[in-house]
Amino acid sequence: MKEFNLQCPIPISDYPRVLLAHGGGGKLMHNLIEKMFSAAFSNDILQQDHDSVQIQIDSAKIAYTTDSYVVKPIFFPGGDIGSLAVNGTVNDLSMSGAVPKYLSLGLIIEEGFAMNHLWLVVQSIALAAGAAGVKIATGDTKVVDKGKGDGIFINTSGIGLIEHNLNISPKNIQNGDVIIINGDIGRHGIAIMAEREGLEFEHTIESDCAPLNEIVQNIINAGIDVHCLRDLTRGGLSSTLNELASSSLKEIIIDEISVPVHEDVRGACEILGFDPMYVANEGKFIAIVPAKDAAKCLEVMIAHQYGADSSIIGRINSADEAIVKLKSRIGTMRILDMLSGEQLPRIC
Amino acid sequence: MKEFNLQCPIPISDYPRVLLAHGGGGKLMHNLIEKMFSAAFSNDILQQDHDSVQIQIDSAKIAYTTDSYVVKPIFFPGGDIGSLAVNGTVNDLSMSGAVPKYLSLGLIIEEGFAMNHLWLVVQSIALAAGAAGVKIATGDTKVVDKGKGDGIFINTSGIGLIEHNLNISPKNIQNGDVIIINGDIGRHGIAIMAEREGLEFEHTIESDCAPLNEIVQNIINAGIDVHCLRDLTRGGLSSTLNELASSSLKEIIIDEISVPVHEDVRGACEILGFDPMYVANEGKFIAIVPAKDAAKCLEVMIAHQYGADSSIIGRINSADEAIVKLKSRIGTMRILDMLSGEQLPRIC
Repeated sequence: MKEFNLQCPIPISDYPRVLLAHGGGGKLMHNLIEKMFSAAFSNDILQQDHDSVQIQIDSAKIAYTTDSYVVKPIFFPGGDIGSLAVNGTVNDLSMSGAVPKYLSLGLIIEEGFAMNHLWLVVQSIALAAGAAGVKIATGDTKVVDKGKGDGIFINTSGIGLIEHNLNISPKNIQNGDVIIINGDIGRHGIAIMAEREGLEFEHTIESDCAPLNEIVQNIINAGIDVHCLRDLTRGGLSSTLNELASSSLKEIIIDEISVPVHEDVRGACEILGFDPMYVANEGKFIAIVPAKDAAKCLEVMIAHQYGADSSIIGRINSADEAIVKLKSRIGTMRILDMLSGEQLPRIC
Repeated sequence: MKEFNLQCPIPISDYPRVLLAHGGGGKLMHNLIEKMFSAAFSNDILQQDHDSVQIQIDSAKIAYTTDSYVVKPIFFPGGDIGSLAVNGTVNDLSMSGAVPKYLSLGLIIEEGFAMNHLWLVVQSIALAAGAAGVKIATGDTKVVDKGKGDGIFINTSGIGLIEHNLNISPKNIQNGDVIIINGDIGRHGIAIMAEREGLEFEHTIESDCAPLNEIVQNIINAGIDVHCLRDLTRGGLSSTLNELASSSLKEIIIDEISVPVHEDVRGACEILGFDPMYVANEGKFIAIVPAKDAAKCLEVMIAHQYGADSSIIGRINSADEAIVKLKSRIGTMRILDMLSGEQLPRIC
């Protein structure tokens, strides 16, 4: 049996205490996962470089994932913590091409939380599960004393069935592959931020929170040779691209002018000092496909309600270097780095 | 599609806000689950009356469960929140006779939590997973602002394989069945309470936190016709028995003198004003088996390290009434009811 190792792998001198940024999807979080969690839990399953892992059970291949939701505020334009907890986990399963089937639901409620708010959240979970075609299979409720939580935190885990024979993985990203996004970025993060800070814009910016399982199945059913799928949550498009560049050891070139950003979101980002490339989404993903399949994939995506504004935004360059480069609107090239911490804490 | 129902099923006049007791394993929690959660999420899977649900995937039958852990304090004699989060979910899977295989791990950490405490918890999780033979397959980390959490909360979900053909379910409890417990009760709850309140006893009372998958497999492999299994967590032996009586519509008779209680636990309960029948355990379960198999089952359980003090504690009476009766040490019979709220908040 393994024994306790008293030497903490994150040097105490650097970070004696956990920072908000350790949960922010940036470099600090990746450092924590790699040095502490991967070191402690190393096994053949966990090593997979995915939002969900693949597990063979008899003749069946399942996808399995988990996420906790601590979004603040819990109600926001376009969604709430309940719909987020369903769609977020549905989307993590979908990104391996799995058909999401079953969710677990763990509620941590703060003493004093309004019973009618709980009822709204519970109904939102039920509606989102119905819309995504998944069943809430098992659940648990804990209540913590007042002042030791923040209204409600939700954990969902999910099980999906993998029925395709594709190799959907960052490791399968190939030179010349084309990157397609299913619509405009930054709406979830800005919706949360505006609600939290009481900002008002000319038009209310709604979260893009949505289930992506159907649009992904449409792509797979169309016979597209999908190489990789990834949703654009914490850390936004930029962090996702950096993770993929790092996992695949490929150079990624993005054409800024092709990345859809709604003018309201762009305006809000300018006021708040954010770069939309780093702002979280909850209904956006990229599909990385061979150039030969790109037009067809784009067509399938545009035909779906959650892909009407799909766009080809970039490609995998032949240089074997883990880097993301952004060709700006004025034609200059700059490196798109991963953030160290996070722009927006508790965005999901 | 379903629509929002604005009428909260828990009357606002009764409980306008969530109480600690709504998470305590007693009547209030059962009321919340039944009226709110079951009403919103009704489906064929969720209705199963188990700690884990059974799902058919191709030719395989899996068990699936989730639990959040909010125990306070996070380190206590005999364990910590990490070992608890592994063993608790391993045990929920084991109670359907499944072989636990994979766990998910969701961490919600409060900003400012000591990094070396996180490392101790992470290592404890790894050691407990190794001891139980399960893999941490997938994980997620969130950090919430200081004052909006309480150090660390952990959610684990778990997947197990069901390889037996038994019908292990409260619905399969039959008249004349014998109830066997795998050892003395109340140690987890008292260990937590003593640590929380700074109480010192002559001998330190350690939590019984332990994985029960192996002892359960030994029972199944011995060919025992197991009718029902249930671990004795929140609400203790008494709440478990009441749940089983209610699900099976059977009368349960327990012989108080046969229920093992360590003298230190009994003493602590007297000082604290607790009844050990209601105190939580984290390594105790009851097996309900036909009378013909009882002696053999007891023998198998006693042979295991987590069953040395196993004992036959009661039986299912032929009266078809959902009630639990306790034959006291002095021979009188009293009804063992379910608590309304909870004795000990945040015990797991």
